[in-house]
Amino acid sequence: MPDSGPQLPAVTYTFSFQAEYPNTPGMLAQIAAAVGECGGNIGDIDVISSSGDMIVREISVSARDSDHARVIVEHLKAAPHVTVISAADRVFLSHRGGKIEIRNKVPVTTRRDLSVVYTPGVARVCRAIQRDPDAVWALTIRRNSVAVVTDGTAVLGLGDIGPEAALPVMEGKAMLFKQFGGVDAWPICLRTTDPDEIVETVKRIAPGFGAINLEDISAPRCFAIEERLRAELDIPVFHDDQHGTAVVVLAAAINALKVVGKRPEGLRVVVCGVGAAGRACTKMLMAWGVQDLIGVDERGIVYGGRPGDEGDASKEWFGAHTNARGVRGSMDQAIEGADLFLGVSVPGVLSVEQIKKMSRDPIVFAMANPDPEIRPELAAPYVKVMATGRSDFPNQINNVLCFPGLFRGVLDVRAQEINEQMKLAAAHAIAAAVAEKELGPEYIIPSVFHATIFKDVARAVSQAAIETGVAEARGTSSELMFI
Amino acid sequence: MPDSGPQLPAVTYTFSFQAEYPNTPGMLAQIAAAVGECGGNIGDIDVISSSGDMIVREISVSARDSDHARVIVEHLKAAPHVTVISAADRVFLSHRGGKIEIRNKVPVTTRRDLSVVYTPGVARVCRAIQRDPDAVWALTIRRNSVAVVTDGTAVLGLGDIGPEAALPVMEGKAMLFKQFGGVDAWPICLRTTDPDEIVETVKRIAPGFGAINLEDISAPRCFAIEERLRAELDIPVFHDDQHGTAVVVLAAAINALKVVGKRPEGLRVVVCGVGAAGRACTKMLMAWGVQDLIGVDERGIVYGGRPGDEGDASKEWFGAHTNARGVRGSMDQAIEGADLFLGVSVPGVLSVEQIKKMSRDPIVFAMANPDPEIRPELAAPYVKVMATGRSDFPNQINNVLCFPGLFRGVLDVRAQEINEQMKLAAAHAIAAAVAEKELGPEYIIPSVFHATIFKDVARAVSQAAIETGVAEARGTSSELMFI
Repeated sequence: MPDSGPQLPAVTYTFSFQAEYPNTPGMLAQIAAAVGECGGNIGDIDVISSSGDMIVREISVSARDSDHARVIVEHLKAAPHVTVISAADRVFLSHRGGKIEIRNKVPVTTRRDLSVVYTPGVARVCRAIQRDPDAVWALTIRRNSVAVVTDGTAVLGLGDIGPEAALPVMEGKAMLFKQFGGVDAWPICLRTTDPDEIVETVKRIAPGFGAINLEDISAPRCFAIEERLRAELDIPVFHDDQHGTAVVVLAAAINALKVVGKRPEGLRVVVCGVGAAGRACTKMLMAWGVQDLIGVDERGIVYGGRPGDEGDASKEWFGAHTNARGVRGSMDQAIEGADLFLGVSVPGVLSVEQIKKMSRDPIVFAMANPDPEIRPELAAPYVKVMATGRSDFPNQINNVLCFPGLFRGVLDVRAQEINEQMKLAAAHAIAAAVAEKELGPEYIIPSVFHATIFKDVARAVSQAAIETGVAEARGTSSELMFI
Repeated sequence: MPDSGPQLPAVTYTFSFQAEYPNTPGMLAQIAAAVGECGGNIGDIDVISSSGDMIVREISVSARDSDHARVIVEHLKAAPHVTVISAADRVFLSHRGGKIEIRNKVPVTTRRDLSVVYTPGVARVCRAIQRDPDAVWALTIRRNSVAVVTDGTAVLGLGDIGPEAALPVMEGKAMLFKQFGGVDAWPICLRTTDPDEIVETVKRIAPGFGAINLEDISAPRCFAIEERLRAELDIPVFHDDQHGTAVVVLAAAINALKVVGKRPEGLRVVVCGVGAAGRACTKMLMAWGVQDLIGVDERGIVYGGRPGDEGDASKEWFGAHTNARGVRGSMDQAIEGADLFLGVSVPGVLSVEQIKKMSRDPIVFAMANPDPEIRPELAAPYVKVMATGRSDFPNQINNVLCFPGLFRGVLDVRAQEINEQMKLAAAHAIAAAVAEKELGPEYIIPSVFHATIFKDVARAVSQAAIETGVAEARGTSSELMFI
């Protein structure tokens, strides 16, 4: 299975089911026949339990997809003498019982251990922190822990699904924090969508965490929530959907411009989608040097004072800070002569005709999920560099590339905030992970399995924090005296 | 070192320090001499780094205690050409960087893994929970996770030390949850002491947790906070300082009564200290069958309508529910003819003279920390059974015996609450862990390292939850279909 190319890979879908049935000759064959009648293909067969006349087996089956699996299971349920106890595929089995757990870093196997990690020993550690509040960073999990906070209102492409249904994503995020950044992240799923209450709650739970990662909170509430928390907390606050995406988009843009031999200063950029991610990407591109940028939404080009934008913080921001040439109209007008199309909107809004109106060597980042603003196979003949949010095409713009290394770098030096320079440093580190000689239209962005990407990002972010004076500690707190 | 007996064990205190000094002959001897002059004894010596003319060594030293260690370090700091970089003892080294961390339960080492635990695979799991909210218990960490919530106002014997200084205790608690109960607990240290705000905050973060353990929240606020959360949340809420202590006290009482051949119905009990723990213990003893119980505080015996008790929920409760004989006066009057003295107050408030006034075979539980209401060696000649909260005397009443198994049992059956019957079941399970033939005045309560204690408690609690109709699930959710 090639890792890239325009075709969707034909991943084999397998699932397992457990069934109880009379332990008599011919029954297993009958079950196998039932699966076969529906086009399923039986793999491994195990005995789970056998008591008296009944047997429970777990049987794995290859199928086309989950709908096909459901058909097979329904057919089995109708088979005489067979009780289907459970059925699940790999995705669900991997999530069963949750994907993360706690591990103790020191043993608790003797009475002596107990007296060190709990009473009476722990009292001395508490008193040390009471005397010197700074010691909490040396003597507790705070130094390495991040709260992954969501209200479940903008989860993946699923929208407002609530805090419980958002939990699997937050656990997944915590796994990536650990695997790629060595960061201990814990999901906090909030039963409130009120911005004041979210701010209040995060401030109240902050003493146990070293940083706050806001996740999947819908716009426009996410702007005010992040701004207030950044102002009112003394630990870093980062809304990954905005800034993580922006960092990786900038990394991709840096390398795409190298491929086409252009510079940010003269670049014409169209940003399609002017919500949270669109605004964050625009800010990063402008911080990098882009001057000519036009935002487009479902009503066309955004400009200062456009009727209907009143009270929408993001659109008002676009009106005030972009579209210096005062272009009006729709995507057809915006795209004229553009060098880079950046889509953070919905599938299918960019046409081949529109790409043809772009400048020489067009760059298209079509990041709508799960289907991009234009299908890569349609765009391919007319673009020089194409990137999407998908793993099954070249140049995946994946914000997993940013947050684990970024938070690692932040925590390593106890940065008080995550500023523009730190995000720029992260983007440049990601871009630099693709060597000049490897760089090409189909390789502008490294894989998340690149050997050093997260360490590179962490080092760059720590360095930028130190240079901008927001780092509290330049290394470990080994100088602390805590007898 | 014997595990029991009246003497305090002479644990050797050792610490390590790192020092930088010129790498010239005689320097190490000079340092060793400086340590020796103060009465310290040098152990292991390691080289940490050596560059140019300087060397950094880590040296371990035996000392009498931490004050002695501090004297040695101060003396070393004054030595010429020596820079002490750091110094720490075993307790601090064990807490460095925190005592718990996250572990991923499934691998994230390939692109395929990523697509299973994160996008796009995770979206199917989110949708499954959105469709069937009950599935959150099968498919996320919620099933096994507990928030250990504190505001840092009543930490150990230290009092109101704030949320940051409380964190080491909450981490220690999380370790015990994991080690003894297999429960994934995460510390939530709150920057608020307002009961309404605490209730509000816990309710908002509840969707990600399977149960709430309130910890080290001072009385009387802890009563209203727990009561409101129990009423307003659909997951169990348990204030360990109250109920964990009460469960283990009841377990000790059950066995102590076997030793002296008495029954709860005729028992006269004096409870010294009528705060959170005192009230919870009293409620448990009365639920068990005790009818004659008198509460005593620093103003003497509590009775209904006692002046000065107005507005104090705990004292008003004592006034209304205890002291049926209407006894008035001080401890001298209360103790007259008592069978069991239960102290959850302050050191030294019980005298030998008072013990002499008790009934035949007096039982004394003196649980003030770190020093009991009466020293065991003073009480020994006059009591039949003596228990304390300390690990260096026989019969340690340690609430670590309760909470890991109790929460294990609660989570196993998804109990909606922790009711009186479940706590009684836990107490009887703890008591039963001491076999009849082992039972004696110096062995009424099992060790936390007893082979099956936590499983015994979990099983008893699950069973009681099922019998009282508060269990949502009787086993795993294997019957769920989630293709």
